[in-house]
Amino acid sequence: MAFPNRNRKVVLARRPNGMPVEDDFRLVDDPVPEAGPGELLVRAHYLSADPFQRMRLDAGSGYGKTLDIGDVVKGRMVGEVVQSNHPKYETGDFVEGMLGWQTYAVSDGSIERAEYAPGITKVDADIAPVSAYLGILGFPGVTAYFALLEVCDPQPGETVVVTGAGGAVGSLAGQLAKIRGCRVIGIAGSDEKLDHVTGELGFDGGINYRSSPDLLADLRRLCPDRVNVHFDNVGGDIAHTILHHLARDARIVLVGNISQNNLPETPFRPDVTGLLMTARAMTKGFIVYDYEDRADEARKAIAGWLAEGKIRYRETIADGIDQAPAAFISMLQGGNIGKQLIRLDDI
Amino acid sequence: MAFPNRNRKVVLARRPNGMPVEDDFRLVDDPVPEAGPGELLVRAHYLSADPFQRMRLDAGSGYGKTLDIGDVVKGRMVGEVVQSNHPKYETGDFVEGMLGWQTYAVSDGSIERAEYAPGITKVDADIAPVSAYLGILGFPGVTAYFALLEVCDPQPGETVVVTGAGGAVGSLAGQLAKIRGCRVIGIAGSDEKLDHVTGELGFDGGINYRSSPDLLADLRRLCPDRVNVHFDNVGGDIAHTILHHLARDARIVLVGNISQNNLPETPFRPDVTGLLMTARAMTKGFIVYDYEDRADEARKAIAGWLAEGKIRYRETIADGIDQAPAAFISMLQGGNIGKQLIRLDDI
Repeated sequence: MAFPNRNRKVVLARRPNGMPVEDDFRLVDDPVPEAGPGELLVRAHYLSADPFQRMRLDAGSGYGKTLDIGDVVKGRMVGEVVQSNHPKYETGDFVEGMLGWQTYAVSDGSIERAEYAPGITKVDADIAPVSAYLGILGFPGVTAYFALLEVCDPQPGETVVVTGAGGAVGSLAGQLAKIRGCRVIGIAGSDEKLDHVTGELGFDGGINYRSSPDLLADLRRLCPDRVNVHFDNVGGDIAHTILHHLARDARIVLVGNISQNNLPETPFRPDVTGLLMTARAMTKGFIVYDYEDRADEARKAIAGWLAEGKIRYRETIADGIDQAPAAFISMLQGGNIGKQLIRLDDI
Repeated sequence: MAFPNRNRKVVLARRPNGMPVEDDFRLVDDPVPEAGPGELLVRAHYLSADPFQRMRLDAGSGYGKTLDIGDVVKGRMVGEVVQSNHPKYETGDFVEGMLGWQTYAVSDGSIERAEYAPGITKVDADIAPVSAYLGILGFPGVTAYFALLEVCDPQPGETVVVTGAGGAVGSLAGQLAKIRGCRVIGIAGSDEKLDHVTGELGFDGGINYRSSPDLLADLRRLCPDRVNVHFDNVGGDIAHTILHHLARDARIVLVGNISQNNLPETPFRPDVTGLLMTARAMTKGFIVYDYEDRADEARKAIAGWLAEGKIRYRETIADGIDQAPAAFISMLQGGNIGKQLIRLDDI
């Protein structure tokens, strides 16, 4: 099918109440925009579904701008330059950026400053398929790299637990810990994900938190020397349980809180100060945009390991922009293995 | 009154149920022990009442050994060597150590290894009165020094909030932050304590958490640039409230949890993961015994500032070993300003 001569956009129809549903979004059609002076027009090949997007749908969010009703959903895109009035970009170049959930986007080509400007970065399709720039070579990769290697600094022989192990960030974080010589235990919500991370990705063990009758008992069995590092993608009860099995001087990096982001109210949990003190544990909140200036450092290292075959990645792909809301909701519910993408029709 | 020729000891009579009461303790008399070969006998001048002692009274505690019923209460002592068969100690030397709440103690003179051995360190009465070695030049001083300066590393111009500001550790932590050029706000449970820390000790402001109608509003008023460092002596609701006013990259050192240590059950509080992530906050559990090998580094620095008049300290003194339980309970309830000590009768 030829790509239609219109810009299709996913906009916010209403604010979700807890877990989003498809009717919270609406597809609208506009004419394809023109690139003005100094601008370029990008045709999307892939859109990205990421946990951070959920928070932007609420009226007040802790960081970053909130969407208004009718706004194009904030989201990352990788696409091809189809028209350029910008000296640094040519037709046929591939770029990645926070260009929104739409089939076409105009950019002024500025270097991306966090998610606030429609900036872009050029991507190299010779290193990996362009979709990888939304995953392992994109912000999920940068997240795993700095949150694990720099914040937690795992040492050979230490035990690293990765929650959300089957997702884009977690599956890479676990592999980076393996490269560091750690024992790596993944926690995920399906046996299929655990088969993937222990089979293809080399994790040392896994726990299905949905079917485990006693998560703490499973942790004790799989982590006999306790937990030195928790790469926390999910927060909530799972993260809380892990606090009961920390090794001394444990490090916990708070990367995601996906188990909590769809709750209408902040839940109550037992005070953990005593547990953190006893373990002398360190926790650190992590937001990847703080590492934007150093993203290339991470991308280069990851690309190197990718080329050496030391790391692998998987993608879960939905086809067509009309499938973006469903793919997003599925990802929030843990339906993806590896990076959740939306591939546009004519690619 | 001459010192009686007997060793008076405070022993655990029964485990406290929540906040201790005097009947949880019992005073017993024994003959004064003799120093055996290689040992020395110490006569106590001061006993120390410290928050950590509360945890030892429970059947299961997170770190350190628990007392059995009838055991001498674990506690620090500063005293005078009255008999020595040890080559490194002479009669008249002053020593400090975890020698228990008793009027006499025998030690083998070993270098103190955490609180597990009855080891001792010699103290220099020329630098400060010997009681200071239970406070500003003792473990409370070492705690304030490393927890503030090394874990939190406050920078000039940053805002540091110290809870438990009127106590031995907090009052020093705030002064160290002032030496670093910070804005320092103390939180304490009485106006008298706040007058002390803002008057004598130079804190920039204070909040009485017992009388404040809205702690968060007071924090906003006194910390217009939010909180860069929380030196957390108390945990609980106060610590939780401060999480709502953190600056980006805030550091929180978990030094004490005195508000929670007497609760029969772990209380529930709203999940704080989102707050910590948004602030990119770091929290770190701190236990002073980890810094034992470096205690002299802290003592020397503190003694230097003391000599220069840059730091001051206050003591709250109870007289007589029979007053030790009451002094301890008073300290747990915030009755002390500065270091809570028990002075023995004939000093």
